[in-house]
Amino acid sequence: MTTVTTSLEAPAPASARQLPVLTICCAPSAAMADDDAASLAGMFKALADPARVKILSMLLNADEVCACDMADAIGKTAATASHHLKLLRDAGLIIGDRRGTWVYYRVVPERLAAIRDALTLA
Amino acid sequence: MTTVTTSLEAPAPASARQLPVLTICCAPSAAMADDDAASLAGMFKALADPARVKILSMLLNADEVCACDMADAIGKTAATASHHLKLLRDAGLIIGDRRGTWVYYRVVPERLAAIRDALTLA
Repeated sequence: MTTVTTSLEAPAPASARQLPVLTICCAPSAAMADDDAASLAGMFKALADPARVKILSMLLNADEVCACDMADAIGKTAATASHHLKLLRDAGLIIGDRRGTWVYYRVVPERLAAIRDALTLA
Repeated sequence: MTTVTTSLEAPAPASARQLPVLTICCAPSAAMADDDAASLAGMFKALADPARVKILSMLLNADEVCACDMADAIGKTAATASHHLKLLRDAGLIIGDRRGTWVYYRVVPERLAAIRDALTLA
């Protein structure tokens, strides 16, 4: 008997052809790729602290904020504010621009959009 | 000496003129309230793990998913999947509905919308 191939690709090997048929209905859709899930989880981890949420909120409401104003605004020491800014920067959520003595921070809109997209109903 | 008003608007009443002048330029806006920042940070913490990001992604792509399908979908044991589901549920991001043997999970759209809003430029 001749095997009729309708696909443009080469026939699958016998072992693959013997796989069970995929159930389309009702089965959960394929999980997100490992890399994407890890990247998003890293951004969420960077935001998993009230002080960092406050910093991001401030930056979302201003074009940029001087690092020199952060400590007072979030009620922490300058060293603590600096630590939180570093974690947000390392996660790619904010970027800093040094001008003279101070670094001025602003959000990275594309990264925030990626999070919003990942939290939107398909 | 007469005060010269260059504004096109009517002079402010005396009570308003005595208020300190607000510094519009450069000052960061007021930080988010502590309760709001803590609530958001709690949700971000619940999402700060690739397995939980994958679970949420699956739920966003389906009306609901049976707990019985989660372990395979995220490549973890049933006990681990159950642990991750509990953390997402405790954070109010998903809810479960027991029907017979299994619990069926779905997202809580309002909570996800709150996160998206907190990540949106003002």
